[in-house]
Amino acid sequence: MDTISIEDVKNKIRAINDFPKPGIVFRDITTGLKDAHALQTMIDYLSDQFKNEQIDYIVGAESRGFIFGTAMAYKMKCGFIPVRKPNKLPAQTISEEYELEYGTDKIEIHADAIEPGAKVLFVDDLLATGGTAKAACNLVKKVGGQLVGCAFLIELSALNGREKLVDCGKVVSMLQY
Amino acid sequence: MDTISIEDVKNKIRAINDFPKPGIVFRDITTGLKDAHALQTMIDYLSDQFKNEQIDYIVGAESRGFIFGTAMAYKMKCGFIPVRKPNKLPAQTISEEYELEYGTDKIEIHADAIEPGAKVLFVDDLLATGGTAKAACNLVKKVGGQLVGCAFLIELSALNGREKLVDCGKVVSMLQY
Repeated sequence: MDTISIEDVKNKIRAINDFPKPGIVFRDITTGLKDAHALQTMIDYLSDQFKNEQIDYIVGAESRGFIFGTAMAYKMKCGFIPVRKPNKLPAQTISEEYELEYGTDKIEIHADAIEPGAKVLFVDDLLATGGTAKAACNLVKKVGGQLVGCAFLIELSALNGREKLVDCGKVVSMLQY
Repeated sequence: MDTISIEDVKNKIRAINDFPKPGIVFRDITTGLKDAHALQTMIDYLSDQFKNEQIDYIVGAESRGFIFGTAMAYKMKCGFIPVRKPNKLPAQTISEEYELEYGTDKIEIHADAIEPGAKVLFVDDLLATGGTAKAACNLVKKVGGQLVGCAFLIELSALNGREKLVDCGKVVSMLQY
């Protein structure tokens, strides 16, 4: 299937004003995901940025990280490992807290998910403040993974999330706002 | 990449006793997802069951339905449409309630997600009692989609979830317990 240009993919992303609260412009990826050409292009573009890295595992965070993570793992012929909200993973887990605008949140990974030294790519739909990504990267390191990089469909550049990921390998985003 | 046998995929699925509560045997797919050959085989097997159907959209429910849904959409070169928990989708939605063991839950789809008559395949990791799948299929029909079928990685046959899906097209599962 033909892929399309990055600009054409960007044009498929819908802007919703005042969601989830007044003053916020929400970048709605669902209008991109439902377009077969845009979906192929997103997965191919993000995968291609790491095609020379011999990635062993893609790690994706619940729930929108699952959307791109497994498709990229399929394309890159590697495994997929989910990072989830507390009490969702059934075996022994390691957890990491991170700060939200108000309060904190926590994510978990299976303690036996990654063999020491395995090469890992973290994938999510959105890089905003970088809190979730940083916490997920910390989990990868805690269980012994070698973090090769982070791939995001969208980066909200003004929020400087990239600065939190200085020790998380190569950071790539496809669309910037 | 070589695929593996269905039996070999099944052997990658870990059984966790007494999760989420005593007496339940939880089928942990994470040990399958992290195996590159098993992941390829899962996606290829489920996609192949509908390869002659000209599917327009895969619909997957939050959050584990995202794991297989997008990868299958990538493989099948169609679009992906998420069904989500309340208040997560930013544009106008249609919702459907369904019963849990105790109480009810609700899922939503964007009202403009599916053009009338578009051919839709619903995908999830697990067919248990069928409550979520039935609700998601109802949403597809409400917004005008033509439901071609449902694909599940795992079917817990004793729970008879399949009986709830008699008017939901061809129902396929890869692994039965």
